[in-house]
Amino acid sequence: MNDIEFMGLALEEAKIAYQNGEVPVGAVLVKNNQVIASSHNQKDSKNCAIFHAEIGCIMEASEKLENWRLIDCILYVTMMPCPMCASAIAQSRIAKVVYGTVANTNDVELVEKIFSTRSYGNTVELIGGILEEETSNLVKDFFREKRS
Amino acid sequence: MNDIEFMGLALEEAKIAYQNGEVPVGAVLVKNNQVIASSHNQKDSKNCAIFHAEIGCIMEASEKLENWRLIDCILYVTMMPCPMCASAIAQSRIAKVVYGTVANTNDVELVEKIFSTRSYGNTVELIGGILEEETSNLVKDFFREKRS
Repeated sequence: MNDIEFMGLALEEAKIAYQNGEVPVGAVLVKNNQVIASSHNQKDSKNCAIFHAEIGCIMEASEKLENWRLIDCILYVTMMPCPMCASAIAQSRIAKVVYGTVANTNDVELVEKIFSTRSYGNTVELIGGILEEETSNLVKDFFREKRS
Repeated sequence: MNDIEFMGLALEEAKIAYQNGEVPVGAVLVKNNQVIASSHNQKDSKNCAIFHAEIGCIMEASEKLENWRLIDCILYVTMMPCPMCASAIAQSRIAKVVYGTVANTNDVELVEKIFSTRSYGNTVELIGGILEEETSNLVKDFFREKRS
Protein backbone atom coordinates (compact mmCIF):
# COMPACT_ATOMS: atom_id res chain seq x y z
CA MET A 1 0.00 0.00 0.00
CA ASN A 2 1.11 3.58 -0.61
CA ASP A 3 0.75 6.87 1.30
CA ILE A 4 -2.58 7.74 -0.34
CA GLU A 5 -4.08 4.35 0.50
CA PHE A 6 -2.96 4.53 4.15
CA MET A 7 -4.30 8.09 4.40
CA GLY A 8 -7.57 6.76 2.97
CA LEU A 9 -7.79 4.42 5.97
CA ALA A 10 -7.07 7.32 8.35
CA LEU A 11 -9.84 9.27 6.61
CA GLU A 12 -12.27 6.41 7.23
CA GLU A 13 -11.38 6.63 10.94
CA ALA A 14 -11.97 10.41 10.84
CA LYS A 15 -15.44 9.78 9.43
CA ILE A 16 -16.27 7.61 12.45
CA ALA A 17 -15.38 10.55 14.70
CA TYR A 18 -17.59 12.79 12.52
CA GLN A 19 -20.54 10.41 12.92
CA ASN A 20 -19.97 10.47 16.69
CA GLY A 21 -20.13 14.28 16.74
CA GLU A 22 -16.40 14.60 17.44
CA VAL A 23 -13.95 16.84 15.56
CA PRO A 24 -13.17 14.49 12.65
CA VAL A 25 -9.56 13.34 12.97
CA GLY A 26 -8.42 9.80 12.24
CA ALA A 27 -5.11 7.96 12.26
CA VAL A 28 -3.49 4.63 11.47
CA LEU A 29 -0.06 3.42 12.56
CA VAL A 30 1.90 1.37 10.04
CA LYS A 31 4.87 -0.95 10.53
CA ASN A 32 6.42 -3.01 7.72
CA ASN A 33 3.64 -1.82 5.41
CA GLN A 34 0.97 -3.26 7.75
CA VAL A 35 -1.56 -1.32 9.84
CA ILE A 36 -0.87 -2.22 13.49
CA ALA A 37 -3.25 0.30 15.12
CA SER A 38 -6.08 2.62 14.10
CA SER A 39 -8.02 5.23 16.03
CA HIS A 40 -10.07 8.40 15.84
CA ASN A 41 -10.66 11.41 18.06
CA GLN A 42 -12.63 10.37 21.16
CA LYS A 43 -12.19 13.43 23.35
CA ASP A 44 -15.91 13.98 23.97
CA SER A 45 -17.00 10.34 24.12
CA LYS A 46 -14.22 9.51 26.61
CA ASN A 47 -14.61 12.89 28.35
CA CYS A 48 -10.86 13.43 28.45
CA ALA A 49 -8.72 15.87 26.46
CA ILE A 50 -5.91 13.40 25.80
CA PHE A 51 -7.90 10.96 23.63
CA HIS A 52 -6.83 12.27 20.22
CA ALA A 53 -6.54 9.84 17.30
CA GLU A 54 -2.73 9.75 17.57
CA ILE A 55 -2.80 8.90 21.29
CA GLY A 56 -5.28 6.09 20.60
CA CYS A 57 -2.89 4.61 18.01
CA ILE A 58 0.10 4.88 20.36
CA MET A 59 -1.79 3.17 23.21
CA GLU A 60 -3.06 0.37 20.96
CA ALA A 61 0.30 -0.25 19.27
CA SER A 62 2.30 -0.14 22.53
CA GLU A 63 -0.04 -2.72 24.05
CA LYS A 64 0.12 -4.92 20.95
CA LEU A 65 3.93 -4.79 20.65
CA GLU A 66 4.38 -4.80 24.46
CA ASN A 67 6.89 -2.01 23.97
CA TRP A 68 6.74 1.77 24.38
CA ARG A 69 9.34 2.10 21.61
CA LEU A 70 7.37 2.09 18.36
CA ILE A 71 10.44 1.97 16.15
CA ASP A 72 10.23 1.85 12.34
CA CYS A 73 6.59 2.97 12.51
CA ILE A 74 4.85 5.57 10.34
CA LEU A 75 1.79 7.43 11.61
CA TYR A 76 -0.80 8.53 9.04
CA VAL A 77 -3.12 11.18 10.46
CA THR A 78 -5.71 13.33 8.69
CA MET A 79 -4.67 16.50 10.56
CA MET A 80 -1.25 17.79 11.57
CA PRO A 81 -0.69 16.66 15.19
CA CYS A 82 -1.07 19.11 18.07
CA PRO A 83 1.97 19.65 20.36
CA MET A 84 0.69 17.00 22.83
CA CYS A 85 0.52 14.34 20.14
CA ALA A 86 3.74 15.53 18.47
CA SER A 87 5.68 15.07 21.70
CA ALA A 88 3.97 11.71 22.40
CA ILE A 89 4.99 10.62 18.87
CA ALA A 90 8.62 11.70 19.40
CA GLN A 91 8.78 10.03 22.83
CA SER A 92 7.34 6.82 21.34
CA ARG A 93 10.21 6.84 18.80
CA ILE A 94 7.84 6.86 15.83
CA ALA A 95 10.02 7.54 12.78
CA LYS A 96 7.71 9.49 10.51
CA VAL A 97 4.38 11.32 10.42
CA VAL A 98 2.34 11.77 7.24
CA TYR A 99 -0.60 14.16 7.62
CA GLY A 100 -3.45 15.39 5.46
CA THR A 101 -4.20 18.99 6.33
CA VAL A 102 -3.24 21.72 8.80
CA ALA A 103 -6.11 22.93 10.99
CA ASN A 104 -4.38 24.96 13.71
CA THR A 105 -1.72 27.16 12.12
CA ASN A 106 -0.77 28.47 15.61
CA ASP A 107 0.80 25.11 16.39
CA VAL A 108 2.83 24.49 13.22
CA GLU A 109 6.05 26.08 14.47
CA LEU A 110 5.82 24.29 17.84
CA VAL A 111 5.22 20.90 16.21
CA GLU A 112 8.12 21.35 13.78
CA LYS A 113 10.34 22.29 16.73
CA ILE A 114 9.27 19.21 18.72
CA PHE A 115 9.98 16.94 15.74
CA SER A 116 13.37 18.48 15.00
CA THR A 117 14.65 18.77 18.61
CA ARG A 118 16.59 15.73 19.70
CA SER A 119 15.18 15.82 23.26
CA TYR A 120 14.79 12.05 23.19
CA GLY A 121 17.71 11.29 20.86
CA ASN A 122 15.55 10.99 17.76
CA THR A 123 13.93 13.30 15.26
CA VAL A 124 10.61 12.68 13.48
CA GLU A 125 10.21 13.11 9.72
CA LEU A 126 7.12 15.15 8.78
CA ILE A 127 5.29 15.09 5.45
CA GLY A 128 1.99 16.85 4.76
CA GLY A 129 -0.65 17.38 2.12
CA ILE A 130 -1.64 13.77 1.40
CA LEU A 131 -5.37 13.77 0.50
CA GLU A 132 -5.29 17.42 1.52
CA GLU A 133 -8.63 18.30 -0.06
CA GLU A 134 -10.57 15.35 1.38
CA THR A 135 -9.16 15.68 4.91
CA SER A 136 -9.64 19.44 4.92
CA ASN A 137 -13.20 19.29 3.53
CA LEU A 138 -14.26 16.82 6.22
CA VAL A 139 -13.24 19.27 8.97
CA LYS A 140 -14.83 22.23 7.17
CA ASP A 141 -18.10 20.30 6.72
CA PHE A 142 -18.07 19.38 10.40
CA PHE A 143 -17.75 22.95 11.63
CA ARG A 144 -20.23 24.25 9.02
CA GLU A 145 -22.79 21.73 10.25
CA LYS A 146 -22.03 22.61 13.90
CA ARG A 147 -22.66 26.31 13.23
CA SER A 148 -25.95 25.78 11.41
CA MET B 1 -2.86 23.10 52.62
CA ASN B 2 -0.16 25.20 50.95
CA ASP B 3 2.10 24.72 47.89
CA ILE B 4 4.83 22.98 49.90
CA GLU B 5 2.39 20.50 51.42
CA PHE B 6 0.81 19.65 48.05
CA MET B 7 4.29 19.27 46.52
CA GLY B 8 5.10 16.92 49.41
CA LEU B 9 2.23 14.69 48.26
CA ALA B 10 3.54 14.81 44.68
CA LEU B 11 6.96 13.83 46.02
CA GLU B 12 5.44 10.80 47.78
CA GLU B 13 3.99 9.76 44.39
CA ALA B 14 7.42 10.21 42.78
CA LYS B 15 8.89 7.86 45.40
CA ILE B 16 6.44 5.15 44.34
CA ALA B 17 7.74 5.47 40.76
CA TYR B 18 11.31 5.25 42.12
CA GLN B 19 10.49 2.03 43.99
CA ASN B 20 9.02 0.62 40.76
CA GLY B 21 12.25 1.38 38.88
CA GLU B 22 10.66 4.22 36.91
CA VAL B 23 12.07 7.74 36.46
CA PRO B 24 10.74 9.28 39.70
CA VAL B 25 8.10 11.85 38.81
CA GLY B 26 4.89 12.32 40.77
CA ALA B 27 1.90 14.64 40.57
CA VAL B 28 -1.32 15.60 42.32
CA LEU B 29 -4.21 17.63 40.91
CA VAL B 30 -5.93 20.02 43.28
CA LYS B 31 -9.34 21.70 43.05
CA ASN B 32 -10.79 23.91 45.81
CA ASN B 33 -7.80 23.02 47.99
CA GLN B 34 -8.62 19.27 47.74
CA VAL B 35 -6.58 16.59 45.94
CA ILE B 36 -8.86 15.13 43.25
CA ALA B 37 -6.26 12.95 41.47
CA SER B 38 -2.75 11.65 42.09
CA SER B 39 -0.37 9.69 39.90
CA HIS B 40 3.24 8.83 39.16
CA ASN B 41 5.26 7.95 36.08
CA GLN B 42 4.22 4.51 34.78
CA LYS B 43 5.84 4.52 31.35
CA ASP B 44 7.72 1.23 31.83
CA SER B 45 5.12 -0.62 33.89
CA LYS B 46 2.36 0.26 31.39
CA ASN B 47 4.77 -0.13 28.44
CA CYS B 48 3.54 3.08 26.83
CA ALA B 49 5.31 6.44 26.48
CA ILE B 50 2.24 8.52 27.31
CA PHE B 51 1.81 7.37 30.93
CA HIS B 52 3.57 10.28 32.63
CA ALA B 53 2.40 11.39 36.09
CA GLU B 54 0.57 14.41 34.64
CA ILE B 55 -1.37 12.29 32.11
CA GLY B 56 -2.38 9.90 34.90
CA CYS B 57 -3.80 12.82 36.90
CA ILE B 58 -5.67 14.22 33.89
CA MET B 59 -7.23 10.82 33.09
CA GLU B 60 -8.25 10.21 36.71
CA ALA B 61 -9.69 13.71 37.24
CA SER B 62 -11.56 13.77 33.91
CA GLU B 63 -13.18 10.45 34.77
CA LYS B 64 -14.05 11.61 38.29
CA LEU B 65 -15.51 14.96 37.18
CA GLU B 66 -17.01 13.44 33.98
CA ASN B 67 -15.61 16.44 32.15
CA TRP B 68 -12.54 17.00 29.98
CA ARG B 69 -12.46 20.63 31.16
CA LEU B 70 -10.51 20.61 34.43
CA ILE B 71 -11.23 24.24 35.22
CA ASP B 72 -9.97 25.93 38.41
CA CYS B 73 -7.49 23.08 38.93
CA ILE B 74 -3.82 23.33 39.95
CA LEU B 75 -1.35 20.59 39.05
CA TYR B 76 1.56 19.98 41.41
CA VAL B 77 4.31 17.97 39.74
CA THR B 78 7.83 17.20 40.93
CA MET B 79 9.40 17.89 37.51
CA MET B 80 8.64 20.55 34.93
CA PRO B 81 6.24 18.94 32.42
CA CYS B 82 7.47 17.76 29.01
CA PRO B 83 5.81 19.29 25.90
CA MET B 84 3.35 16.36 25.67
CA CYS B 85 2.11 16.93 29.21
CA ALA B 86 2.25 20.73 28.87
CA SER B 87 -0.08 20.63 25.86
CA ALA B 88 -2.36 18.06 27.56
CA ILE B 89 -2.54 20.41 30.58
CA ALA B 90 -3.40 23.42 28.39
CA GLN B 91 -6.01 21.44 26.43
CA SER B 92 -7.55 20.22 29.71
CA ARG B 93 -7.96 23.89 30.75
CA ILE B 94 -5.89 23.40 33.92
CA ALA B 95 -5.25 26.91 35.28
CA LYS B 96 -1.85 26.57 36.91
CA VAL B 97 1.16 24.28 37.19
CA VAL B 98 3.49 24.25 40.20
CA TYR B 99 6.65 22.18 39.67
CA GLY B 100 9.66 21.18 41.74
CA THR B 101 12.70 20.97 39.49
CA VAL B 102 13.72 21.19 35.84
CA ALA B 103 15.26 18.02 34.45
CA ASN B 104 15.27 18.57 30.69
CA THR B 105 16.48 22.09 29.97
CA ASN B 106 15.98 21.46 26.21
CA ASP B 107 12.22 21.59 26.73
CA VAL B 108 11.89 24.71 28.89
CA GLU B 109 11.36 27.15 26.03
CA LEU B 110 8.85 24.86 24.30
CA VAL B 111 6.84 24.37 27.49
CA GLU B 112 6.76 28.10 28.24
CA LYS B 113 5.58 28.71 24.68
CA ILE B 114 2.81 26.10 24.98
CA PHE B 115 1.60 27.62 28.25
CA SER B 116 1.64 31.19 26.93
CA THR B 117 0.11 30.52 23.47
CA ARG B 118 -3.66 30.87 23.46
CA SER B 119 -4.14 27.94 21.05
CA TYR B 120 -7.09 26.76 23.12
CA GLY B 121 -8.22 30.17 24.36
CA ASN B 122 -6.50 29.85 27.73
CA THR B 123 -3.01 30.30 29.13
CA VAL B 124 -1.47 28.27 31.97
CA GLU B 125 0.33 29.91 34.89
CA LEU B 126 3.69 28.29 35.66
CA ILE B 127 5.58 28.41 38.97
CA GLY B 128 8.73 26.42 39.74
CA GLY B 129 11.21 25.67 42.47
CA ILE B 130 8.86 24.34 45.19
CA LEU B 131 10.80 21.67 47.17
CA GLU B 132 13.47 22.09 44.49
CA GLU B 133 16.21 20.31 46.44
CA GLU B 134 14.12 17.27 47.40
CA THR B 135 12.58 16.77 43.96
CA SER B 136 15.94 17.25 42.23
CA ASN B 137 17.83 14.94 44.60
CA LEU B 138 15.34 12.12 44.04
CA VAL B 139 15.99 12.20 40.28
CA LYS B 140 19.76 12.46 40.76
CA ASP B 141 19.73 9.51 43.19
CA PHE B 142 17.71 7.48 40.70
CA PHE B 143 20.15 7.98 37.82
CA ARG B 144 23.20 7.52 40.08
CA GLU B 145 21.78 4.17 41.21
CA LYS B 146 20.97 3.21 37.60
CA ARG B 147 24.54 3.89 36.48
CA SER B 148 26.18 1.92 39.31
